[in-house]
Amino acid sequence: MVTDPQTACFEAGIKFGTLYHQFAGTPVSPDSARSLERAMAEAIENQPHCESVSVHILDDALDAELAGSTADYTELTGRFMEVEMEIDYEGVRVRTEMEMEDGYPLMKIVSVE
Amino acid sequence: MVTDPQTACFEAGIKFGTLYHQFAGTPVSPDSARSLERAMAEAIENQPHCESVSVHILDDALDAELAGSTADYTELTGRFMEVEMEIDYEGVRVRTEMEMEDGYPLMKIVSVE
Amino acid sequence: MVTDPQTACFEAGIKFGTLYHQFAGTPVSPDSARSLERAMAEAIENQPHCESVSVHILDDALDAELAGSTADYTELTGRFMEVEMEIDYEGVRVRTEMEMEDGYPLMKIVSVE
Amino acid sequence: MVTDPQTACFEAGIKFGTLYHQFAGTPVSPDSARSLERAMAEAIENQPHCESVSVHILDDALDAELAGSTADYTELTGRFMEVEMEIDYEGVRVRTEMEMEDGYPLMKIVSVE
Repeated sequence: MVTDPQTACFEAGIKFGTLYHQFAGTPVSPDSARSLERAMAEAIENQPHCESVSVHILDDALDAELAGSTADYTELTGRFMEVEMEIDYEGVRVRTEMEMEDGYPLMKIVSVE
Repeated sequence: MVTDPQTACFEAGIKFGTLYHQFAGTPVSPDSARSLERAMAEAIENQPHCESVSVHILDDALDAELAGSTADYTELTGRFMEVEMEIDYEGVRVRTEMEMEDGYPLMKIVSVE
Repeated sequence: MVTDPQTACFEAGIKFGTLYHQFAGTPVSPDSARSLERAMAEAIENQPHCESVSVHILDDALDAELAGSTADYTELTGRFMEVEMEIDYEGVRVRTEMEMEDGYPLMKIVSVE
Repeated sequence: MVTDPQTACFEAGIKFGTLYHQFAGTPVSPDSARSLERAMAEAIENQPHCESVSVHILDDALDAELAGSTADYTELTGRFMEVEMEIDYEGVRVRTEMEMEDGYPLMKIVSVE
């Protein structure tokens, strides 16, 4: 027996794994950050039960990384972004987010309603 | 309030999204299928709360694809594999699998215990 | 001994492999195609020696795929896009493109000047 | 006019971009490094004109990364691997390699024969 809230949380997890591993490694700079944020959000919103996705690439974190570098771009990874997502499965609303915690990108459920 | 079974299902979803979108697109042939299966399983087993992963690349489906082609490899996608996974989060065991259903790779929860 | 035109062609190949394998598998629909095109182009333009990238996602090909399907999105792959790229390495200009040929996405050099 | 050595170098670049961006971001630990090395090499060897690929995941670099961490795995990126590749296009042999230089993974042509 699997409940609707459990399935809703499973669906939320799929979207997070997809977003992260589809786009991690993408060449990114402050100049290209806005188009990448939008493409990531719109790509994941295609997936079933996905109500909304918001991706925020952290210009300050990119700038800090590039200041100590001879390159003018880097590879997208968890410490350069924050993500919020809402899933709706059979009327169950799951809100999730990803942000850095103790140096790691932590994906977590904010609420199940 | 998020329950342990809900979090366990979220974690299971993350692993599935990761596995699929990290490896989809990989050049694959019957000759390289065994090493890819193993690498996919061992990579995902690194992730937190992931007890076991089994990836089965379907040689018959690969052969059928390549029979109608001038190439001797293709790109990995859902119709060429079946996956089973067990997640253990705070004592909650979630079993999941992915297989084709109506022409789509369907990721689903088999049981939550 | 490696010549500048040879290195320019090597650099062009790197960009093509990057573009294809970073973004293949991305969930895509006619509604999200424009943002994905732009993000792909801007991401690759970050890479060294890359003058310009143009990505055209083929709405007709997407529509045809989705017409025979119960889903309203698919995974990005070579038959849904055309790509043009210009590389400039030490004054050598390489123009490349990718388009379908005999059912395969063919990446090729158009000119080296 | 594009010469065979130029096309051989273009093909070599494609393989490098593919290898890097297909597998960057993969969860990796010393325990899973061997299966990933093998899968990466065999996957890329499927591609046209690719004679041989050797991937060496650097256990020392992984150990150093994980020593300063509470996690027991990380994401694959350029500083954790060295790669050598041989391409043969119409009798032209191109040898390439990737290794770290000044903090960046540098892909380069070793020889064209």
